[in-house]
Amino acid sequence: MNFIHLIDYAGTFAFAISGIRLASAKRFDWFGAYVVGLVTAIGGGTTRDLLLNVTPFWMTQPSYLIVTGLALISVILFGKFIIRLNNTFFIFDTIGLGLFVVVGIERTLDAGFPFWVAIVMGMITGSVGGITRDILINELPLIFRKDIYALACVIGGVVFLCCYEAHFSSTITQILSAASVILTRVLAVKYHISIPVLKGHDDN
Amino acid sequence: MNFIHLIDYAGTFAFAISGIRLASAKRFDWFGAYVVGLVTAIGGGTTRDLLLNVTPFWMTQPSYLIVTGLALISVILFGKFIIRLNNTFFIFDTIGLGLFVVVGIERTLDAGFPFWVAIVMGMITGSVGGITRDILINELPLIFRKDIYALACVIGGVVFLCCYEAHFSSTITQILSAASVILTRVLAVKYHISIPVLKGHDDN
Amino acid sequence: MNFIHLIDYAGTFAFAISGIRLASAKRFDWFGAYVVGLVTAIGGGTTRDLLLNVTPFWMTQPSYLIVTGLALISVILFGKFIIRLNNTFFIFDTIGLGLFVVVGIERTLDAGFPFWVAIVMGMITGSVGGITRDILINELPLIFRKDIYALACVIGGVVFLCCYEAHFSSTITQILSAASVILTRVLAVKYHISIPVLKGHDDN
Repeated sequence: MNFIHLIDYAGTFAFAISGIRLASAKRFDWFGAYVVGLVTAIGGGTTRDLLLNVTPFWMTQPSYLIVTGLALISVILFGKFIIRLNNTFFIFDTIGLGLFVVVGIERTLDAGFPFWVAIVMGMITGSVGGITRDILINELPLIFRKDIYALACVIGGVVFLCCYEAHFSSTITQILSAASVILTRVLAVKYHISIPVLKGHDDN
Repeated sequence: MNFIHLIDYAGTFAFAISGIRLASAKRFDWFGAYVVGLVTAIGGGTTRDLLLNVTPFWMTQPSYLIVTGLALISVILFGKFIIRLNNTFFIFDTIGLGLFVVVGIERTLDAGFPFWVAIVMGMITGSVGGITRDILINELPLIFRKDIYALACVIGGVVFLCCYEAHFSSTITQILSAASVILTRVLAVKYHISIPVLKGHDDN
Repeated sequence: MNFIHLIDYAGTFAFAISGIRLASAKRFDWFGAYVVGLVTAIGGGTTRDLLLNVTPFWMTQPSYLIVTGLALISVILFGKFIIRLNNTFFIFDTIGLGLFVVVGIERTLDAGFPFWVAIVMGMITGSVGGITRDILINELPLIFRKDIYALACVIGGVVFLCCYEAHFSSTITQILSAASVILTRVLAVKYHISIPVLKGHDDN
């Protein structure tokens, strides 16, 4: 339990930092940066919970707002230093993503929906925060063009389904599913693997 | 029943194609294009269902996700050919719009809301998908500037109300309402009818 | 009761005008301007009600849609004259904000959530409409960069909490909380007080 919480907070922190950094590049004020960081961190889970018709997870305990506040303070105090920790944040962010996907799938199954909905919700949990962040800073959503971010979420969902069908224990299922998300993303970034760009529109 | 389903899928396909085409013009990858297509097709109905506090329609059966997948595959395989079918898609899209409006109105009345809410929900069902699509591709929403799209939804709602008050049968009411949406839009495009641009802001 | 309603309508009118004016600067048509005005006026409360899982407030009575319609008609008829009433609208808008924050807090407490959620909901009620307006007109949200708008909402929330803990009567609590929102915003604009811009991102 404690370990899961630790990863959850580290993931939230990393997601919040990514929002705050992009907001600062647009010269947002502290408050604006906080909101963008918060939306990046909790936007995916909030969308999922609204669709599942359950109380949004961050409304039951203030820790997500506090962790985002700590992320803001870190950037205010240690600005450029934080920026240079790019690789560290990539790790946090990716581990957080793996956890978010697993949490999203489990909450959906708990709410009584079938597996294909759970896989979609795992992806929504992992990616809607980043999409909303990019809308708020008025940019084209990054994950639609550069990363295999969302596809990694889908792969994690399929691995979860396979483990579940094979009657693996709940802990093993969680670990393998999260690990497949993390591994997919790390390999894709390392070997510059990306999804083909869609051609078809007559843009010459 | 079967005929309604066929129109529903044709409308979903046409809405998805419109999202995928615009995403491809922004050089989104396949996955990004799929998401934009899906949001265009299901965004309106999802917003309606969240406001009505019922389970979003696409979470009860996977067909909408599958139809959007077929739309993506069509664009990948037949790219430029699909683009040239502009008029065909205009027909599908407009018939789909008529159906979406009727479905939106009926779901709202079933949930126990008054008629004016149902008319608003018919419009939301028909137009929020396109608005969200334009936000995702970082453009000014098209329907606010160029079409009488949303007004056609309102007219369809008023026709539905009149038929209902006149105690027409449910089938006749559905057909006349959808037909009025389709007719309004076709006439507006054919005769270049549009809503006046708002002046008033001092933009010189 | 009547007085509260009057302020509520005045605030809705002022919020709607702010959306319609910005939409007209982007050459939206009448319908688009109406939608942007409506979203500005009811977007915050709708988001709050979805998160609280209660029926969105504007779906129980048509007055908010009517007030927004009156705002549109005013701009169509009295365009440039309305624009010059900048200061008048600033007053309406700020009084409306104070009321929206108090309504947001009370609805949240009524739904059984703790105080920190209520303060967040007060802020969401006051500011999400303006953020959505800026997304629809494809601009960086203004309140993230220029105003202490959202911070005024938080201060109003804290004052509400203090009055509540001090067992002040409900009326006094409402008035002091709304007054603190209004005072904060007026003083900030008068003395050009703003939140520091976040530095830290390497943007040279």
